[in-house]
Amino acid sequence: MLTLKDINPNVLAAEYAVRGPIVQRAQELEALGRKIVYCNIGNPQALKQPPLQYIRQALSLLENPGLLANHSVMDSYPKDIVARVRQILKMHPHGTGAYTQSAGIPFIRQAIADFISRRDEISADKDHILLTDGASKGVQAVLLALLTSPDDGVMIPIPQYPLYSASLALYGGKQIGYFLDEDSGWQMSQTILTASHDEAVAKGIKPKAIVVINPSNPTGSVLSRENVENIVGFARSRSLSIIADEVYQENIYSRELRFNSFARVMAEMNETDVSLFSLHSVSKGYLGECGHRGGYLELPNVPDDVLAEFIKIQSIGLCSNVSGQFATYFMVSPPQPGDESYATFIRERDAVLADLKAKAEILSNGVNAIPGMSVVVPRGAMYAFVSFSLPKENGVDADNMPADKRRAYEAGRDSDYCLALLEQTGICVVPGSGFGQRPGTLHFRTTFLPPRDEIESLVTQMKAFHLSYVQALEKRT
Amino acid sequence: MLTLKDINPNVLAAEYAVRGPIVQRAQELEALGRKIVYCNIGNPQALKQPPLQYIRQALSLLENPGLLANHSVMDSYPKDIVARVRQILKMHPHGTGAYTQSAGIPFIRQAIADFISRRDEISADKDHILLTDGASKGVQAVLLALLTSPDDGVMIPIPQYPLYSASLALYGGKQIGYFLDEDSGWQMSQTILTASHDEAVAKGIKPKAIVVINPSNPTGSVLSRENVENIVGFARSRSLSIIADEVYQENIYSRELRFNSFARVMAEMNETDVSLFSLHSVSKGYLGECGHRGGYLELPNVPDDVLAEFIKIQSIGLCSNVSGQFATYFMVSPPQPGDESYATFIRERDAVLADLKAKAEILSNGVNAIPGMSVVVPRGAMYAFVSFSLPKENGVDADNMPADKRRAYEAGRDSDYCLALLEQTGICVVPGSGFGQRPGTLHFRTTFLPPRDEIESLVTQMKAFHLSYVQALEKRT
Repeated sequence: MLTLKDINPNVLAAEYAVRGPIVQRAQELEALGRKIVYCNIGNPQALKQPPLQYIRQALSLLENPGLLANHSVMDSYPKDIVARVRQILKMHPHGTGAYTQSAGIPFIRQAIADFISRRDEISADKDHILLTDGASKGVQAVLLALLTSPDDGVMIPIPQYPLYSASLALYGGKQIGYFLDEDSGWQMSQTILTASHDEAVAKGIKPKAIVVINPSNPTGSVLSRENVENIVGFARSRSLSIIADEVYQENIYSRELRFNSFARVMAEMNETDVSLFSLHSVSKGYLGECGHRGGYLELPNVPDDVLAEFIKIQSIGLCSNVSGQFATYFMVSPPQPGDESYATFIRERDAVLADLKAKAEILSNGVNAIPGMSVVVPRGAMYAFVSFSLPKENGVDADNMPADKRRAYEAGRDSDYCLALLEQTGICVVPGSGFGQRPGTLHFRTTFLPPRDEIESLVTQMKAFHLSYVQALEKRT
Repeated sequence: MLTLKDINPNVLAAEYAVRGPIVQRAQELEALGRKIVYCNIGNPQALKQPPLQYIRQALSLLENPGLLANHSVMDSYPKDIVARVRQILKMHPHGTGAYTQSAGIPFIRQAIADFISRRDEISADKDHILLTDGASKGVQAVLLALLTSPDDGVMIPIPQYPLYSASLALYGGKQIGYFLDEDSGWQMSQTILTASHDEAVAKGIKPKAIVVINPSNPTGSVLSRENVENIVGFARSRSLSIIADEVYQENIYSRELRFNSFARVMAEMNETDVSLFSLHSVSKGYLGECGHRGGYLELPNVPDDVLAEFIKIQSIGLCSNVSGQFATYFMVSPPQPGDESYATFIRERDAVLADLKAKAEILSNGVNAIPGMSVVVPRGAMYAFVSFSLPKENGVDADNMPADKRRAYEAGRDSDYCLALLEQTGICVVPGSGFGQRPGTLHFRTTFLPPRDEIESLVTQMKAFHLSYVQALEKRT
């Protein structure tokens, strides 16, 4: 029988904290009847965020076009949705039942190109767009394609979303971490980028690309235009590709901020040499359609022969799931003024986004009032990366440990903390070590997705837990 | 900008003939207005096979549970389907909208275990079942996990389905081909297995697993129980895992034949040591729901710690798409006697299978009547692997070429032939070299999925094309 010795060491090395041991323990407790508040993952509909009606009405007709002959359904569905489904079935008569082109259904790729053009006031090419099973599969294809040898590395932020570290481990590439600066609201610094790049090169690592998550998971920060420009300049100067994880582009909660896509900034800088991989998804934004695994990868500044290799990777899995492709289509082309479904769409969309904004504030204000805890108020995405401090343990001198040992020690501390939080309160969050954090700091990531009243009670429970946990540690030391 | 030199050489090396250059040319011709008959891929609904109603009715309700309040829909849908959707939404209130557990929704995994138990009269464990985005993604996860070094190899049949050769190339493993025997109806031979295994070992390759496709893609053959037993014994004696691609298990067109799953045969042999990876999918069988990318991987005889690594691989992509999970659920638990939808289900299922059986015969009889062409009549799956002969070219002595050169020469010949067939008739088939073939033989793979009248005309066109192609070659030589 197979044993772990028979398994690819890269697989063994991969870690994915968002679904790691604490989540498994939460599932065990839940099976025993405990109420668990899952704040470990950006899964809005599992936390009672309702789906937007227009997208589900359209998908129900696409799954069973027979409903188009049902007068009662036709009377209850908005006319524009019905008309669009009829038009789709004319362009694509196989509906959800057949494999599509490897890159995805052509009219959907055109709709995505149009969406990017409207959003960014630039031109976009449908032939440089691939539909993917969520953004995650797009990221994995890019990393697999860019790693030519075990010495190749990819720059990733710290803290990062562990999809990146896990996939790099899986495909045998090196992580080149660059720290985000908590004190300046998790912004990126050119000095830090340069230092981490040069340090990697000195170690014999060949940097191939830089990952930027904007708005950021897990910090909730939103990059300024200047920041984006600097990153493009940096990538150009170091011959790096840019992997732009832009799945939270609709999740910005501050009126003064706007989303600066890499595609737009690069076009405005006349940057035609840096290859860009930009990712988007139906899982986040105001849709939260995680279960549909829909998304796309846009590849500007990538020559046709390289593009063909990406299409080939898609073709080996045949194509992304077709309901996910249709969900992506309706994400990039929502109802328009004048459409019967428009008012409902706007009301539902605005309710989701206003609710997320309010919950980000409730959570942050609550956390910042807890002694020994603090958080940069998230201005985007769905997460808060909460800093907490614990008393030093007697006889432990973390400051003078070797880096690896210190990382393991501090990972043990934040994991123990999160596990105790789960056991005592039923709140499931992810230890900061799963995302990476500066030595000497401890964090956890929580979403602000639960309903408002639950967020309020969650903050109260966190406070009580934190104080008692610290007290118990102090007694022991 | 990126160039091909920046791309992972394993990606560059991967080839996937089913969607290769001939298919791209077909898409170009189609865009120019040519009628193309796509026989390159098992994509039934793209060739007018209708979806089964019960599965689409269920999916439409799961996409928009609001329809459950519509009396007219409730009156027109079978009561059992409505009741089952209500029950699903009670067990799994998030419907299609949320990420699921990485392995898939628990009640669906239980339903799959029950399906295997009923099919094979053995016990099956829901915790050893993972839901995947179609079988392809399951295969890729298994190959990624089993390859521990570039010297590791996997035994694959020749001809094979190119998912295997492409994925092995992608993850840097070695192909160990074993020939199927065309003269005995593409059966497997213990002698050939042993010889190809030992030859690989002599070259320093470490065989890790053997892939068996049953019923076979591309040959349409169905393994006897004795054959399956022999493979299990062989795997045991060589400490190999078995990757059993069993996606065509419902596609058997001969009353005397039955599907012998590896799980069943191994259980009956009391084989508890050989690790098995068994794959199934909603894309084939009588459903043909390729677009939904649903499927599962069952892993009997795999210890828990190794199983956990497979769940981790799934978790990095979060989970398989949820409509595909539901489609898989309805595949393994179709309507039962007494259900309102039962009669329709049986009628639709039997019509699809009877049609496939009839078309396999029309195609084979037609092809076997063409001078210089022959085919083993497919008794399963959806494909015929047609042998054709061409006159020798003057001055070319293929028999005395080195193996690599000969393979390239013959691949050129069958590709030219298939391209000419496409240009002249609009029929799109895949060259045999994409699947592998014995030196000195030429083949193409065609599906028998087009409607009956199209298959009849296809055979007529093939005959005319073949005779004129051979004549033209003879004139030139």
